[in-house]
Amino acid sequence: MEKIPILRMGPFLLVTIQVDLYDRLALNLEADLIKTISDTNAKGVLIDISVVSIVDSFMGRIIGNIASMSKILDAETVVVGMQPAVAITLIELGLPLTGVHTALNVERGMELLRAKVNLDDYSSSEDEDGYEPDDQRDY
Amino acid sequence: MEKIPILRMGPFLLVTIQVDLYDRLALNLEADLIKTISDTNAKGVLIDISVVSIVDSFMGRIIGNIASMSKILDAETVVVGMQPAVAITLIELGLPLTGVHTALNVERGMELLRAKVNLDDYSSSEDEDGYEPDDQRDY
Repeated sequence: MEKIPILRMGPFLLVTIQVDLYDRLALNLEADLIKTISDTNAKGVLIDISVVSIVDSFMGRIIGNIASMSKILDAETVVVGMQPAVAITLIELGLPLTGVHTALNVERGMELLRAKVNLDDYSSSEDEDGYEPDDQRDY
Repeated sequence: MEKIPILRMGPFLLVTIQVDLYDRLALNLEADLIKTISDTNAKGVLIDISVVSIVDSFMGRIIGNIASMSKILDAETVVVGMQPAVAITLIELGLPLTGVHTALNVERGMELLRAKVNLDDYSSSEDEDGYEPDDQRDY
């Protein structure tokens, strides 16, 4: 399975990173994602990295690239579920992920995207969102 | 990354299978999913297998088990994005996935779940859903 699925959820795209993003896979993801955004006219991209425990400069750069490319295509990018160690590493690597929005979990990321693209016709799941910050990573 | 993330989306849980479900990983997923359902009182489980191109009797059985366990915990299970070859294989393996609902893609799966649990307070994304059956697998 040499492909990371891109799930369409209403006006947003959801990508869950579960495997190590080695070069080809990452570049394929970039290309697929950009193609999907232009094909579906998606307004936002949600990238879940809750199971990513190790990040290197390459992966950080890929995420930054995806955000920049999406921005050009008028789609916001939100990275959710980042583990503290990953955040520390990214900063120590000098990759502050400029232009990338972050959220604690998918639901909050969705709310952030909805707010950013002003999609009031999409119901908020705030009332469902009553758990602790690290729950997502516990599952 | 020896863990398949379980994403909470409102009252539903979303699992994307991207890697081969070898024994331990599959059993961990089973356990994590059941724990998450009971912890979050989720009403439905959405399993995306759009990038799964090879399925064996073990994986088929695991999906069946998850559906049965979820059912006991009052959560419906919907498998989405199944490739035709996988459907053929499952039937040829004698695994009709009884008790498992299926849908073409995540959006339709969500609609199916909403219909099953009668969650009228969640907005339908039907209007966003205007693409071809195999689009999901193309991305």
